[in-house]
Amino acid sequence: MKKILIIGIGAGDPDYMTVQAINALNQVDVFFVMDKGVAKEKLVALRKQIIERFIDGDDYRIVEATSPERRRDDTDYRSTVDELNRDKQRLFEGLVADELRDGEVGAFLVWGDPSLYDSTIRIIEAIAQDGRHAFDYDVIPGISSVQALAARHKVPLNLIGRSIAITNGRALAEGFPANVDSVVVMLDSQNAYRHLAHEDLDIYWGAYVGTPDEILISGKLRDVMDEIERVRAEARRTHGWIMDTYLLRKRDGK
Amino acid sequence: MKKILIIGIGAGDPDYMTVQAINALNQVDVFFVMDKGVAKEKLVALRKQIIERFIDGDDYRIVEATSPERRRDDTDYRSTVDELNRDKQRLFEGLVADELRDGEVGAFLVWGDPSLYDSTIRIIEAIAQDGRHAFDYDVIPGISSVQALAARHKVPLNLIGRSIAITNGRALAEGFPANVDSVVVMLDSQNAYRHLAHEDLDIYWGAYVGTPDEILISGKLRDVMDEIERVRAEARRTHGWIMDTYLLRKRDGK
Repeated sequence: MKKILIIGIGAGDPDYMTVQAINALNQVDVFFVMDKGVAKEKLVALRKQIIERFIDGDDYRIVEATSPERRRDDTDYRSTVDELNRDKQRLFEGLVADELRDGEVGAFLVWGDPSLYDSTIRIIEAIAQDGRHAFDYDVIPGISSVQALAARHKVPLNLIGRSIAITNGRALAEGFPANVDSVVVMLDSQNAYRHLAHEDLDIYWGAYVGTPDEILISGKLRDVMDEIERVRAEARRTHGWIMDTYLLRKRDGK
Repeated sequence: MKKILIIGIGAGDPDYMTVQAINALNQVDVFFVMDKGVAKEKLVALRKQIIERFIDGDDYRIVEATSPERRRDDTDYRSTVDELNRDKQRLFEGLVADELRDGEVGAFLVWGDPSLYDSTIRIIEAIAQDGRHAFDYDVIPGISSVQALAARHKVPLNLIGRSIAITNGRALAEGFPANVDSVVVMLDSQNAYRHLAHEDLDIYWGAYVGTPDEILISGKLRDVMDEIERVRAEARRTHGWIMDTYLLRKRDGK
């Protein structure tokens, strides 16, 4: 029997690694490291740094593969994601079949937490359901960028007794979610917060949170949104990529 | 200058501790451990177990205090919470003033993640704002029960490109939140999921997740809700307390 571990490695700081994740790393025979082109070089480097730092000995192999990219044309978002996930499933299936021997443990290292806006669990579950490859799998949670953001800004995510929404830029562009006063936004490449400039909101924004390049900006949305947009564009140019998250909170809430 | 660390110790499994949290523990002179009566004895024991396991040496003090309880009478929820937080603030202020010397580091160990349904950040921030006690403080994120639940059930929290709500039993009793298909419910002592039995939902429920007492139940809400209610009541009787969380997901979503 083969075994797959989906290991959350935390968002940014290698010190976000849990004891459970470190113990898991040390059982692994084969690490599958997905390379997503030049923009993600830093993330691949971080994965290798984590492997080297936390593993005793060197009886493991690293298999690198180029992750398929989502088509960015006029096709609707959902179908390009479905297509991407089918491509990833084929790729992951090939890796499990060809690169992992019976009795071995393979691992995918997931940035942040595997349960939050990541497709690895879904893809591995689909391969398991498919039944052509027999394997067990386990999921190890990691510190998500959402928690890292809140910790660095030293703010709770929720107001007392109130709900939180976690969403993405695409959904936020349709408006502030109903019945919540705290919204965490991930994967917003279009500065969707601008759509909400007329509302009375505070924003807690962070990029590269937990890394030496960390940038934090917070304040009344209307007052700081131009600064965030400018700093964000500049950071993206400097680093070649950006990973940012933000919390929006209604000001009348307490 | 005094320093306060608000350290997330993860939900349940001591192996959820991060390297950052372990390093933080080792800087601490005084641990403030809140005791909430017999029901929480196990949580206090877990905190002490974490302190003993992860600290090199023994140059620290543990100060135990009895945490004020929320009034459970007819007064409305929000004002009893406000009153509770004022009581906690007075208690924490006294601890920081009397038990921590200048130049020392004090710590509050928070179950799960300090940013999620926990009042410690809010209270420490209020004391800092108040200005009568000069101190710095920092927040160290931890694995929340939400992430532990998702990892143990091996499910993503969100559906592709969709939002998540994190809420509590009180809010859920008012209905399934709008515009989301995944809802995580914390702090539900009233089996609020029963209000949603007419909707086509899957539930992923877990109690004592990550501990040796862990119980996981999942399935179509209508099919498993009686079992969950029964198992929950039984576990509460057996252990004297319960800590449970669940994810509800619309079945038509994908």
